[in-house]
Amino acid sequence: MKERFRPILKPDDIYQRSFSMIEEEIGEHTFTEKQWPVVRRVIHATADFELGKSLLFHPKAVDAGRRAIGEGKGVVVDVRMVQAGVENERLLRWGNRITCRIGEEKAGKIARREGITRSMAAMRLAAGAAQGAVVVVGNAPTALIELVRLVREDRLRPALIVGLPVGFVSVTESKEMLWSLREIPTITNRGRKGGSSAASAVVNALASMVDSPAVR
Amino acid sequence: MKERFRPILKPDDIYQRSFSMIEEEIGEHTFTEKQWPVVRRVIHATADFELGKSLLFHPKAVDAGRRAIGEGKGVVVDVRMVQAGVENERLLRWGNRITCRIGEEKAGKIARREGITRSMAAMRLAAGAAQGAVVVVGNAPTALIELVRLVREDRLRPALIVGLPVGFVSVTESKEMLWSLREIPTITNRGRKGGSSAASAVVNALASMVDSPAVR
Repeated sequence: MKERFRPILKPDDIYQRSFSMIEEEIGEHTFTEKQWPVVRRVIHATADFELGKSLLFHPKAVDAGRRAIGEGKGVVVDVRMVQAGVENERLLRWGNRITCRIGEEKAGKIARREGITRSMAAMRLAAGAAQGAVVVVGNAPTALIELVRLVREDRLRPALIVGLPVGFVSVTESKEMLWSLREIPTITNRGRKGGSSAASAVVNALASMVDSPAVR
Repeated sequence: MKERFRPILKPDDIYQRSFSMIEEEIGEHTFTEKQWPVVRRVIHATADFELGKSLLFHPKAVDAGRRAIGEGKGVVVDVRMVQAGVENERLLRWGNRITCRIGEEKAGKIARREGITRSMAAMRLAAGAAQGAVVVVGNAPTALIELVRLVREDRLRPALIVGLPVGFVSVTESKEMLWSLREIPTITNRGRKGGSSAASAVVNALASMVDSPAVR
């Protein structure tokens, strides 16, 4: 078998085959028709049904996200892995600028001066770009906590916040804080899992839905 | 609780706390003392114990990887998300160049001409940089299949192959093909899970072990 194995080579065929396998294996769930393409894409990117099924959607999240992307409102991300995951033809076609400020020297300076994490400092620096945009946290819970604070203090109003940090420290707490922000559309999940691939998959799924008839 | 939650803000404290939680929760396993820091870091990056426990190590893999990184032999990666995950001070300090050729126009041309995936074409283009280097596949099974072919045909001899593609199509098969390559040190895992974060975590764990006394 090993010597004779012939992989599927066409990207569209790989997607189609993966999506049918996911639909065969998912079993019962309560996601709506609009949410399902996002969930399916997260499962595709992670091969993790548990992570896919843990997703939580504000009722307006999918429409808010695809509208903002279709109108080129831009995407703000916490880390370079998420930036690499979303910086693709589909996002850029609609005129979206991808903003990631964690690598800037200024972020390090603010972090040291204020005694906060570099991710928090980068989120403060990105607040201007985040107005009306899709803001995505795929790694750092402290970035998400800072984001929630800025929204609560009425200093920031993104179109959608995708909050999927991953890990053991402050992660579930940061997601609970985000989920309690009912005035802003949000997508998050239950538990410690998340990560750059899941977060990018959410944004890429929303971008692929911009042209769907239901959006306008 | 939500209003009063105070996150841990120092990166070293976050790592320490995460690592102790992982060690408390992991339960029994058969990883060696050398392999454990790699497994722990994958669990830290994914919050997924199942993924961490699915890792497979060639007996010489950890030493081969940290030696190659310590000697600045370079790292070749399949996708930009893995590049973003490993392009950090620790890797660069040892003089490692990070090579990722998937974005080049040439990769697209070869793919179209030969009827192969862009990931396979990018791996062919990177074969020169991959000699004696650490080669990392965090996304595309077809890149891993191409890599195995180049090694079998004696056209490529990396120091270590980290093969952790993720997904539903050709993924487990590509890992079985890699694992059957006993002449080269490899790190892979059982099953469909994997991904850019897990693959980057393996490389970053190896880089953090370069200075460990056992390496020389």
